[in-house]
Amino acid sequence: MRLIVLTPPYNLILATVSFELIAECSQTRARAGLLHTAHGTIETPVFMPVGTLATVKGLTQRDLGDELGVRILLANTYHLYLRPGHELIRSLGGLHKFMSWPHAILTDSGGFQVFSLSALRTIDDHGVIFQSHLDGATHTFTPESTVDAQLAFGSDILMALDECPEYPVSHEYARQSMHRTLSWARQAKEHFDRRLAQSQDLPNPRSALFPIVQGSMFADLRRECAARLTELDTAGYAIGGLAVGEPRPLSMEMVEATEPVLPRDRPRYAMGVGMPHELSEYVGRGVDMMDCVLPTRNARNGCLFTSQGRVVIKNTRYRDDPRPLDENCRCYTCTRHSRAYLRHLFQSGEMLFAVLATRHNIQRYLDIMREIRHAIISDSFPEYLKCVRSAATNAE
Amino acid sequence: MRLIVLTPPYNLILATVSFELIAECSQTRARAGLLHTAHGTIETPVFMPVGTLATVKGLTQRDLGDELGVRILLANTYHLYLRPGHELIRSLGGLHKFMSWPHAILTDSGGFQVFSLSALRTIDDHGVIFQSHLDGATHTFTPESTVDAQLAFGSDILMALDECPEYPVSHEYARQSMHRTLSWARQAKEHFDRRLAQSQDLPNPRSALFPIVQGSMFADLRRECAARLTELDTAGYAIGGLAVGEPRPLSMEMVEATEPVLPRDRPRYAMGVGMPHELSEYVGRGVDMMDCVLPTRNARNGCLFTSQGRVVIKNTRYRDDPRPLDENCRCYTCTRHSRAYLRHLFQSGEMLFAVLATRHNIQRYLDIMREIRHAIISDSFPEYLKCVRSAATNAE
Repeated sequence: MRLIVLTPPYNLILATVSFELIAECSQTRARAGLLHTAHGTIETPVFMPVGTLATVKGLTQRDLGDELGVRILLANTYHLYLRPGHELIRSLGGLHKFMSWPHAILTDSGGFQVFSLSALRTIDDHGVIFQSHLDGATHTFTPESTVDAQLAFGSDILMALDECPEYPVSHEYARQSMHRTLSWARQAKEHFDRRLAQSQDLPNPRSALFPIVQGSMFADLRRECAARLTELDTAGYAIGGLAVGEPRPLSMEMVEATEPVLPRDRPRYAMGVGMPHELSEYVGRGVDMMDCVLPTRNARNGCLFTSQGRVVIKNTRYRDDPRPLDENCRCYTCTRHSRAYLRHLFQSGEMLFAVLATRHNIQRYLDIMREIRHAIISDSFPEYLKCVRSAATNAE
Repeated sequence: MRLIVLTPPYNLILATVSFELIAECSQTRARAGLLHTAHGTIETPVFMPVGTLATVKGLTQRDLGDELGVRILLANTYHLYLRPGHELIRSLGGLHKFMSWPHAILTDSGGFQVFSLSALRTIDDHGVIFQSHLDGATHTFTPESTVDAQLAFGSDILMALDECPEYPVSHEYARQSMHRTLSWARQAKEHFDRRLAQSQDLPNPRSALFPIVQGSMFADLRRECAARLTELDTAGYAIGGLAVGEPRPLSMEMVEATEPVLPRDRPRYAMGVGMPHELSEYVGRGVDMMDCVLPTRNARNGCLFTSQGRVVIKNTRYRDDPRPLDENCRCYTCTRHSRAYLRHLFQSGEMLFAVLATRHNIQRYLDIMREIRHAIISDSFPEYLKCVRSAATNAE
């Protein structure tokens, strides 16, 4: 392990999001760092809970910030653009004020949702025309318009519009699509820089834009995309198009192909991943930021992640189980309630189940990230990774 | 106003629930008191939030107890008997432990739910046979079995099985039904005393049974029922069969007919009432305890009660309203969020809406009860009542 102090340029600290490397693992690509934003500093590697519509389903902002210690969350441009609309959010002072969230916010570009949720989408080099999944109305996203929407939100980190191809696609399609994503990223960056330079009426002038590496499951395309994107010299880089149905070893291969091309002094964000035992795998491959709906969505469906493995709470064996969900967990749910009560709430369709389950699952994810970070800093990450792998194998 | 110290008999304090009168209004029948239970003392008049299935929908027990200051809540025998079952709850240490609620619990007898929810019910003097609204299975409630279920819960206050007639019914039907309720109350009391005397395996040996005054909308039947019930010398009395569709002046008349017959030194509980502006009306007629699903159910439906009247949050006028729901309210929702954000959550069907709205509505009800109690103790209740009536008239 090496302890590092990479002081970012002074103007970078003031002007935008900046990244500070604290430690690197001596054997893997894992790193620990600090991500500075206008809304506080975030310890990395970090897992970002998903607050699609300006709320993490079932949790209050106080639960998230004060109790769970979340310092950055993700919101969805596609959803918030459709409802309540970015102009409304800007008129109310931006997303932080709108949802009363004092910490950092990352918004995705909406590209992924356009491809996964909306009907009748038409894509060309100009952008994407789509029908709202809410009312069928037609909308257009361009690299410029999604930057504008995210600037109206006042997001700390904005994502450039990308095309996220399904899995599998041909090399030829993936290449064309990757080039479109590349050229959209350039347009987005130009527009972002111009808007920031004008800097009028922006809820958050200290934001940063991250472009997204695509290329489907082709290492050559991933490498090419990453190399070209780094020319944009952005404050961070995302790896998109993962966890879209491909086998997990392939996702890992794509991260391995991409990571060495990305600059060491910028954060890397793997979008939409992953399962609890996968978090350290991504970190071991050089990833600093992740997000996923798994802990929140699975919580609502009765699937709980504990330090001893998964608990599917509807199982009859928990009917009269007086033990906490996870004896090693210090969350409100585990310190106050039994599995029997949680099962009763789930079986009865009670809202409190989602509230308690989500709180626990987020706590579990954040605990894992804290363990990972501590392992990197204390140079025991390779051993930690070994333990996680062995536990995951035993659980299979 | 008279300040009173009515010390309850010593054995009553130890053995069961007891009531202490603190102040009586000099002009109305309003009283302020203290209700002592094995799970703490409750200031009366009190509004009890409804936690049907051992949860107040959308709130954690910590929200309720520590933040809102709820000291007694209501749970439903019918629902908990069907799911998860009273034997399971007893085996897990009783309802307080099961739901992790350190304060008092009142459970109704299940009679009202049998009549309002279940199909194919057959009633005779023995009890009521009904089909579960969940799976159609046949069950029987008797005065004894509902006492047993509530003793298994370890409720602080149990309710005797009653028949709650719909509105309207004939005087003849109401008379027969009232006599059935009377005789069930006697059976329930006998059984309750016997079980308590044996006192084995009871999660809460310091509980009390309240019988329920019925008689539909006939003052003579109400008076007769109340007079006969007082012979049972129970720790408190309930007035049931209100708010079942009758015009509100009739409900008030029934309370007025009943109240003078009930002993002054015991708490009176008006079941299933009422709207915010009605709370002081019931208190002014001598009621000490109330419960209602209105604040919680209306919250989930987007109807919010504020110090300035009702807010129907879906209304377009709140779309960009940056003000808190109620500027006079100190709840989490009002101190942290805008109407615009609440409307967005409601329109999006987000769970956080129910969480925030329920929290506010319960706070509003408890604030009203605190105002009422303060007015009684400071002998300004008649003026308070006048203000409430004038505001309610203006709102019409």
